[in-house]
Amino acid sequence: MNAPLSTAAVRAQLYTEMSPLNLTPLWEVLHALVPPQPATPCVSALWKYEQVRPFLMRAGEAITADEAVRRVLILENPALRGQSAITQSLYAGLQLILPGEVAPSHRHTQSALRFIVEGTGAYTAVDGERTTMRPGDFIITPSWTWHDHGNEAHGPVVWLDGLDIPMIRFFDAGFAQNDSRKSQAVSRPEGTSLARYGYNMAPVRGNAPFGATSPIFNYPYERSREALDRLERDAPLDDWDGFKLRYVNPLTGGSPMPTMATFMQRLPPGFSGNPWRQTDGAVYSVVEGQGEIVIEHAGIQSTLAFGPRDHFVVPSWHTARFKSASGCVLFSYSDRPVHQALGIHQEERLS
Amino acid sequence: MNAPLSTAAVRAQLYTEMSPLNLTPLWEVLHALVPPQPATPCVSALWKYEQVRPFLMRAGEAITADEAVRRVLILENPALRGQSAITQSLYAGLQLILPGEVAPSHRHTQSALRFIVEGTGAYTAVDGERTTMRPGDFIITPSWTWHDHGNEAHGPVVWLDGLDIPMIRFFDAGFAQNDSRKSQAVSRPEGTSLARYGYNMAPVRGNAPFGATSPIFNYPYERSREALDRLERDAPLDDWDGFKLRYVNPLTGGSPMPTMATFMQRLPPGFSGNPWRQTDGAVYSVVEGQGEIVIEHAGIQSTLAFGPRDHFVVPSWHTARFKSASGCVLFSYSDRPVHQALGIHQEERLS
Amino acid sequence: MNAPLSTAAVRAQLYTEMSPLNLTPLWEVLHALVPPQPATPCVSALWKYEQVRPFLMRAGEAITADEAVRRVLILENPALRGQSAITQSLYAGLQLILPGEVAPSHRHTQSALRFIVEGTGAYTAVDGERTTMRPGDFIITPSWTWHDHGNEAHGPVVWLDGLDIPMIRFFDAGFAQNDSRKSQAVSRPEGTSLARYGYNMAPVRGNAPFGATSPIFNYPYERSREALDRLERDAPLDDWDGFKLRYVNPLTGGSPMPTMATFMQRLPPGFSGNPWRQTDGAVYSVVEGQGEIVIEHAGIQSTLAFGPRDHFVVPSWHTARFKSASGCVLFSYSDRPVHQALGIHQEERLS
Amino acid sequence: MNAPLSTAAVRAQLYTEMSPLNLTPLWEVLHALVPPQPATPCVSALWKYEQVRPFLMRAGEAITADEAVRRVLILENPALRGQSAITQSLYAGLQLILPGEVAPSHRHTQSALRFIVEGTGAYTAVDGERTTMRPGDFIITPSWTWHDHGNEAHGPVVWLDGLDIPMIRFFDAGFAQNDSRKSQAVSRPEGTSLARYGYNMAPVRGNAPFGATSPIFNYPYERSREALDRLERDAPLDDWDGFKLRYVNPLTGGSPMPTMATFMQRLPPGFSGNPWRQTDGAVYSVVEGQGEIVIEHAGIQSTLAFGPRDHFVVPSWHTARFKSASGCVLFSYSDRPVHQALGIHQEERLS
Repeated sequence: MNAPLSTAAVRAQLYTEMSPLNLTPLWEVLHALVPPQPATPCVSALWKYEQVRPFLMRAGEAITADEAVRRVLILENPALRGQSAITQSLYAGLQLILPGEVAPSHRHTQSALRFIVEGTGAYTAVDGERTTMRPGDFIITPSWTWHDHGNEAHGPVVWLDGLDIPMIRFFDAGFAQNDSRKSQAVSRPEGTSLARYGYNMAPVRGNAPFGATSPIFNYPYERSREALDRLERDAPLDDWDGFKLRYVNPLTGGSPMPTMATFMQRLPPGFSGNPWRQTDGAVYSVVEGQGEIVIEHAGIQSTLAFGPRDHFVVPSWHTARFKSASGCVLFSYSDRPVHQALGIHQEERLS
Repeated sequence: MNAPLSTAAVRAQLYTEMSPLNLTPLWEVLHALVPPQPATPCVSALWKYEQVRPFLMRAGEAITADEAVRRVLILENPALRGQSAITQSLYAGLQLILPGEVAPSHRHTQSALRFIVEGTGAYTAVDGERTTMRPGDFIITPSWTWHDHGNEAHGPVVWLDGLDIPMIRFFDAGFAQNDSRKSQAVSRPEGTSLARYGYNMAPVRGNAPFGATSPIFNYPYERSREALDRLERDAPLDDWDGFKLRYVNPLTGGSPMPTMATFMQRLPPGFSGNPWRQTDGAVYSVVEGQGEIVIEHAGIQSTLAFGPRDHFVVPSWHTARFKSASGCVLFSYSDRPVHQALGIHQEERLS
Repeated sequence: MNAPLSTAAVRAQLYTEMSPLNLTPLWEVLHALVPPQPATPCVSALWKYEQVRPFLMRAGEAITADEAVRRVLILENPALRGQSAITQSLYAGLQLILPGEVAPSHRHTQSALRFIVEGTGAYTAVDGERTTMRPGDFIITPSWTWHDHGNEAHGPVVWLDGLDIPMIRFFDAGFAQNDSRKSQAVSRPEGTSLARYGYNMAPVRGNAPFGATSPIFNYPYERSREALDRLERDAPLDDWDGFKLRYVNPLTGGSPMPTMATFMQRLPPGFSGNPWRQTDGAVYSVVEGQGEIVIEHAGIQSTLAFGPRDHFVVPSWHTARFKSASGCVLFSYSDRPVHQALGIHQEERLS
Repeated sequence: MNAPLSTAAVRAQLYTEMSPLNLTPLWEVLHALVPPQPATPCVSALWKYEQVRPFLMRAGEAITADEAVRRVLILENPALRGQSAITQSLYAGLQLILPGEVAPSHRHTQSALRFIVEGTGAYTAVDGERTTMRPGDFIITPSWTWHDHGNEAHGPVVWLDGLDIPMIRFFDAGFAQNDSRKSQAVSRPEGTSLARYGYNMAPVRGNAPFGATSPIFNYPYERSREALDRLERDAPLDDWDGFKLRYVNPLTGGSPMPTMATFMQRLPPGFSGNPWRQTDGAVYSVVEGQGEIVIEHAGIQSTLAFGPRDHFVVPSWHTARFKSASGCVLFSYSDRPVHQALGIHQEERLS
């Protein structure tokens, strides 16, 4: 006659027997499933441009834009290697296009942003209109629009690609098509979209050309920098953000894309900010100046010192604060509009 | 013994007897109450600036801005004399302010637009910020914000005032207050609002400063004209409107004020447009060039020939078409957003 | 040699000379145009059903429903006689339909509500569906839908018609059509609309059948009364409103029609409420019980004592408070959604 | 002297050298990242209640509700074992509560739905109000509201838990708290929420109590079934869905929760539907009757035969069609509102 099984043994046996039915006991994992606060697997990380650039240039030799379709080095979160993700929901990469090259036309459900890092004179074409890329420009490829890129200038052009690839993959909703043409036909002069929607005016007739995505697909740095400049003159300094603006879809007042918000901020010389944390992890591209971000998480503090063209990521609910002796300008993007649409955005400003 | 009353007599007696109870038979008025199509009491009309201006100047001598509070000649629809209305729902007037004068600070529920007609260098102050007025600028005074005007320049300044006065009166919802100060204190440098909201960007924090009204309160002509110029280069000509843009509230994509939409349009030289009609009566201010509008209603056709600084009104459901040999630029406003909010906007484009 | 004219004379001469140009000096009327608070021309009024009913019945003899198209006695605001209006923006009337009669099919831009006052068994048909009318039912005729009414019962049926006729007239946006058929064809069984949208569920496919107007077109009294009953058991008494619910468009959460909000409220026995005022004038139909409303305006106080089937109007910004010894149930409607859409709704609760 | 490296070797060396910098070549993974159509890792699966129930009952013996906090067997997608997920974004589990037990009070950012499968008389308490659970009831626990469950009846009660746990984890936005009390205090009588919001009416004052989540937290089966019944009588049969309704948040017209849509549908006897596919994977609970779903994906066809209380999952972009000889009623939920908010919802109805 057997001794009665221990509680642990009874449970273990139960788990084993029900496993073939694809059943799992919640109580063994509940705490991890419903954590007291966000427990992201992501970590913070910095990509120094001086270190990344040589590899970009070597990639320029190792593969053509045409063969690569997109010659991009993905910035992978060190804790998410192999997932092509910089946060759980977002993708970041640096794309190189050399003089004379064309990155062929395709389209996909995923939304993309381009933030120009180095070089002038490449173009991106969206829905029949080309726009010239200049450093600091923020350019959009709306979901499901044909787009191709080319470089008709003399030097290499590099930009940051920000996409919602992991998010669309998570929701199992990605579609893509290659164009039979290498470059799409140009049907409108450059600047048409900005002319129609960028002056706080809009055509009387016609729907939003890209649905919930902004009809402006190039927000030139010249304008954004001017706005930031004027804000610096007029507005009170924010002790966390310095001077910070969000890019706006002029037909809704919301974010330029349904899945990603974009920001540009100025930290004035001598800025030493207060710490904050937010649920939306954010990716930064340094436009001008030097600075550092101090990130604390799980008792560990790390300081990332950045300069022009560097990139870094601040994961969800990591406490961070900025310092800049020289002053600097930062571009950033995150999935905040999704957090807001789902009613799950949280933010804390500490002192 | 009396003969039986006729049907007509029976009814007449019934009407008479129930009248003291404030009862009226619908069937006697049904057709007029529910007409087959809009039967506006308004008529079309034109105010030639060369005829109006002398009266404005005489008003400048007859009363001070301070005494008048607002020295304005109301453009009254000829069919609505005494009602201070240019259409049933809208008010229009031409305001004069002479060098050194101040139109004292007050606020009211009514929303106002200013469209600058003549002279440079006057200012309007809204909610702590002053903006300089230049011809062609479109300026907003949001509902319930303190505002005052002044002229620190050398010559007279004249602008078109467009308000929703009759509409707010109709809804019995008007409130007003005079400020104890003649001019409000200035708390922000000129251009702050445009800097914060006019660059397709917006502050990260903070609500819409004027609720449903645009946070931009000066849309400068320089910018609007440039947008129109570029539209003329890029966009197909519309056979009814020429090239026409609507002003946009950048935080919503909608009209600058909840009660009024505003437009600027360019008719290119030699334009001879197709006729249209719409339920929202519209008020026009001519910015540049000459032209004419041919209006047909109830079998009568009238042609209004206009030049710079002239004003005219096209009532609801009047058929109208534009011609311009020289080309021209027109500003206009109507109550279209209300028609749209109530689901009653109708428009017909004829050929 | 003439003596110089007095200021008054100079101005008078100016006014006279510019009048032919349809110009009017604002400063002579500014105070009335922009009053410190709403100065409605409307007055409060009460229609006792016992007084109105005999005239309705006499109208039943004097004219057929077919000849009248709609046999309605309009409840005209005593201060707006001849305007077919109970407030500046709203219309109210009592409609009688006798056994065997049909009020022929037509449609118009104006939205209509019916609130059943007396009699059971008449029907209204909207867009191919008939609904039987029972006292206390709130029924909608959405803008531009064909509708006809008929009485297949044994006694007279009377209901309150509430329409936005003056509002649509003011905005010059009314269209109407008579149907070539007397009664429209019935294409769906009775109750279909309520079945599809009334259970906090909705068809997976298909758009809102009536645009911004509720897809439910009969809110039966049986249900509304039950909701009110339960509210009375569970919710705290509101010192101004008693227990008050608004009818909801289940596809938007907003008012049943874009132009009119509707309400049902219960004052419990012994209720003596606090005074309030609001910019939206409201029309009431008494469903059950007795009570009185005390209205103060411009220093004058009037008390309207009401019982079942009586109707009364409370104009904009009149201070009012309810009392009910026996308890009562009231239906009401106003143009509140328009005030809210235009950003001009104001309300004050006094103690 | 070395021979030149092959292209492949050059690339391999490049990849190896840049890997320590957390750089990865996009071109090696592009096709998988941006697939031509959704390539979900999930598979379809069926959980027969007769197989699952014994394990639930054994779990009832192996652990108390109090110790387990929630005694739930997670239905894990066979292709996502260990991830507590039935699709990539959604969680499903069957919860058992025995007579006399209490599942203690806690709250979390994750939204939850309960769909009652077996037994009557347990309750769930949300925000101070208890609701009794009956088979077929659809109950909501809004994000961040305290909730506890208890069973005061004589038999076991089992329900389906549907949560957005994987989605909130993906967005790194989960917060949770345990209550110091085991059961929350009851502050309102049962049925209050339904009374206030379930009758196509709503309180005149006060905000939505649960933000973007429905203020109704129990949609009783009695009502849903009646709606479905009436739809079956009145509406045309849909060749894909049979008769299908979505649950509605009465304050918005949208889905009951921002992250999940819920549906109830009726397949009439003899139904043999057409195939469809959609990007939102869906979880089904069978309420009444028998049927089968034929699922095709990647050239493989599988047929799931289901009966009352069975559960199954249809992954994204799998082609599926329903058959039911006897007729049946199905409840289902998916993350469709998120797909719609992000502009990525796709659906195809095949013939």
